[in-house]
Amino acid sequence: MQLLASYLHGTWSNGSGSRTPLVNPATEEVIAEVMSGGHDLAAAFRHARMAGERELAALSFAQRGALLGALSKAIHGAREELIALAVANGGNTRGDAKFDIDGGALTLSYYAELGAKLGTVQLLGDGEPLQVGRTARMAGQHVWARRRGVAIHINAFNFPAWGLCEKLACALLAGMPVIAKPATATALVAHRLAQLFEPLLPQGVLQVLIGPAGTLLDHTGPGDVVAFTGGSATAHVLRKQLPAVRLNVEADSLNAAILGPDVELTSEAGNLFLADVVRDMTQKTGQKCTAIRRVLVPEARFKDVCEAMRERLASLAVGDPARDDVRMGPLATAQQRDDVRAGIARLVAATEAVHGTGDVTPIGVPAGKGFFVGPVVRSTSSPLDCEPLHSHEIFGPVTTVAPYDGAAAFAAEFIARGEGCLVSSAYSDDRDWVASFVTAAAPWAGRLYLGSAKMAAQSPGPGTVLPSLVHGGPGRAGGGEELGGERGLHFYMQRCALEGDASVLKSLLS
Amino acid sequence: MQLLASYLHGTWSNGSGSRTPLVNPATEEVIAEVMSGGHDLAAAFRHARMAGERELAALSFAQRGALLGALSKAIHGAREELIALAVANGGNTRGDAKFDIDGGALTLSYYAELGAKLGTVQLLGDGEPLQVGRTARMAGQHVWARRRGVAIHINAFNFPAWGLCEKLACALLAGMPVIAKPATATALVAHRLAQLFEPLLPQGVLQVLIGPAGTLLDHTGPGDVVAFTGGSATAHVLRKQLPAVRLNVEADSLNAAILGPDVELTSEAGNLFLADVVRDMTQKTGQKCTAIRRVLVPEARFKDVCEAMRERLASLAVGDPARDDVRMGPLATAQQRDDVRAGIARLVAATEAVHGTGDVTPIGVPAGKGFFVGPVVRSTSSPLDCEPLHSHEIFGPVTTVAPYDGAAAFAAEFIARGEGCLVSSAYSDDRDWVASFVTAAAPWAGRLYLGSAKMAAQSPGPGTVLPSLVHGGPGRAGGGEELGGERGLHFYMQRCALEGDASVLKSLLS
Repeated sequence: MQLLASYLHGTWSNGSGSRTPLVNPATEEVIAEVMSGGHDLAAAFRHARMAGERELAALSFAQRGALLGALSKAIHGAREELIALAVANGGNTRGDAKFDIDGGALTLSYYAELGAKLGTVQLLGDGEPLQVGRTARMAGQHVWARRRGVAIHINAFNFPAWGLCEKLACALLAGMPVIAKPATATALVAHRLAQLFEPLLPQGVLQVLIGPAGTLLDHTGPGDVVAFTGGSATAHVLRKQLPAVRLNVEADSLNAAILGPDVELTSEAGNLFLADVVRDMTQKTGQKCTAIRRVLVPEARFKDVCEAMRERLASLAVGDPARDDVRMGPLATAQQRDDVRAGIARLVAATEAVHGTGDVTPIGVPAGKGFFVGPVVRSTSSPLDCEPLHSHEIFGPVTTVAPYDGAAAFAAEFIARGEGCLVSSAYSDDRDWVASFVTAAAPWAGRLYLGSAKMAAQSPGPGTVLPSLVHGGPGRAGGGEELGGERGLHFYMQRCALEGDASVLKSLLS
Repeated sequence: MQLLASYLHGTWSNGSGSRTPLVNPATEEVIAEVMSGGHDLAAAFRHARMAGERELAALSFAQRGALLGALSKAIHGAREELIALAVANGGNTRGDAKFDIDGGALTLSYYAELGAKLGTVQLLGDGEPLQVGRTARMAGQHVWARRRGVAIHINAFNFPAWGLCEKLACALLAGMPVIAKPATATALVAHRLAQLFEPLLPQGVLQVLIGPAGTLLDHTGPGDVVAFTGGSATAHVLRKQLPAVRLNVEADSLNAAILGPDVELTSEAGNLFLADVVRDMTQKTGQKCTAIRRVLVPEARFKDVCEAMRERLASLAVGDPARDDVRMGPLATAQQRDDVRAGIARLVAATEAVHGTGDVTPIGVPAGKGFFVGPVVRSTSSPLDCEPLHSHEIFGPVTTVAPYDGAAAFAAEFIARGEGCLVSSAYSDDRDWVASFVTAAAPWAGRLYLGSAKMAAQSPGPGTVLPSLVHGGPGRAGGGEELGGERGLHFYMQRCALEGDASVLKSLLS
């Protein structure tokens, strides 16, 4: 049995203690093991603060970007192997696995290019010079400076490749050494990435703890930052545990999709809407933080939308994701399956059936094995008052459809009931409706995806996180921000207002 | 005896419960009282969410700016009265009072002008449009949108006018209704401002709770934000109490001043350094979050700096700040005096004497009355290892001087030992030294003030917070940001990435 080692303080070590099995969630076969602890985490922090800090200080943005480029290439070189690991350990179909792995490589190469563009400056300028005295001589200039400290990355189980890469890209380009802790259940992909990346990076720049976090966060000190992706319950614990540490949280999100009152289902925008909703509730078995959990459609289209979803989902093949004919695999863990089933039960008590119950007979799997839940669509005629719809993220292939009067204000209020989300989408070719919608809904979303006829042919879909656009959301979604081009570096930097002689300030940015 | 009422849910109410006296800290005379509670805070939140939200939604940035302009004018109109209140209730000299009150008016008028500039747009653009699809048609655009919710402002005792105004200016211009809670001990000035502002603002836009916070924070919900200025102990409690609320903290700060190795004390930069250090340790009796607590000077200048400080401080008249001949008043409260004395005792155990013990016989005050502490300068020959110097903010007229070898890296390390500050300053005409210093020190400061011969004649000094520059600092200083021009609005807004057809996105920003 493969035992997954951690890469800490310059060495690979298995750790010690009890063994936790990693399984194939389709077959429940044990495919690897991790130890429960026994790592010298204090030494890992020292290594980051000494070697990692020294190595990064010696590199320009362009040089750090070149490192990210090498990591991206390494992923491309091992792509098939990584996809196989994701299928075996993550319950991913080949498509799901590519979404994760290619997404990671793309994000690394995006930040590699940004590094080349930033070049050899020491400080990044923030805005224009300002006059702060009687004459232009006395000036102010905001800058972003590399933080000194360690970046701790706590990643979620659903994107072992992309999650590791997107956080690493920003931290490393900004100039902070990283200790990453992938989720244990799906650690095979992250572990292989750590093996691929290790020889390509200077000492101390990236360390990877495979297995439980243990006392990891007890070692944080001034200058350190923690970026966390996961459930809101854990996020609350972290906030209370780390009141003095800079913390970025990406947590629960009840993303919505809104069909505008002007859109026919047979139109380009209507087709895009249906395709996005069905894909974003079933891709990665609904285990995407950006998946569509709530759908609002004009009363006149309500029946047609339900019918179209039934039709598309009826033909969805669920089973062993290693098979070519399977379109949706299992959930990643038994715990996830139990949580999703509990969520469905809560929803069932407050909504009506449209499609599915969650029960499914998976293709190509020994009877009774695997953490499978089939797609479920529910509906409610009380979209604003359906409490479980707005208060609980069901992290699986489950969504709820509701009718509305077509008013943009109602759609925005529906989104607001989720108390903050990562992304929501609206489909309309009516610019006035879109303008009203955006103004009212934007405070509740980190991203708003505006589907329309004109962009339908080249849309990446609302569920795809792009490195150039901010990822994160207010309130329930954690209040954090990642990516967004250069914005993604800011969490790992300190904004500082410089004040002094204008020519001195100018020389500092050249 | 004047009983200070709160302005909540559209009415002035005294509250109920026990009475807390507000005193003149120079004479200990009781000059007003506040009740311990008895306010309908739930009604205040409802008022903000209904009336305040509705009124602000109807106003453009320009119109909100015009309101701020009216508030600034109201301060100018009542300036002498406000100064008298600050002298009586805050222990302020006339100069101290002007620093607070004029600073508040200036900040309001700065944001009034910004409002006029922003005009009538609904969303503020953040960066340029991005191509996110195969062609330029599929685009991304980041925007800032007005948050929906209530802004709770918890202000510190030392700047009752400026603190109220600087937070209010940003929140109101961004479009959030405010409930402000001034510090009780010095509430006379804030209470008078609330009286002046009330008739000038639409219903629900500003409410002011005078007295203890009580259950104020228990009413916060999705969309609400809390901006806190005060001690780090309270900040930690808030963070734990409000894990899901957007929180801005400005807390303790061990600001440093560094004399560069090239600067003669008799030069322009040298004079500026001495003037800044002495002013920023004695202005407002050292009760400024931006005051200079730690001073580092080249070994060769160490004795001269100590001598010059002794000389300047020996002639400092301490006493009743209502007198024209007094340059420094008392601390604001008995508790502050006790805390400062305890801090001096800790420092004394680890440093050597340069000037003063804190004991002082104040001018024009009945014997034994008033919360006075005289200026204290200590020194240490171990600037990096003097633990109390770097771990405890003494919020009074106390500073410590230490010698160093003149290396920029050492100076930056000295600043870093404070684990994050609001501002630090360095005085040098050597551009290479300044460049090394800034790169190494910027991660540890929200602002770096670079003193030099060229700007000496028009320098505002490091202790002056300007509305155009960010105010806040990493780590111990709370990790927050206020002001900084348009940046100051962002805490009260949500950044949202819009994704869609390029021409649609463009139309949303026009």
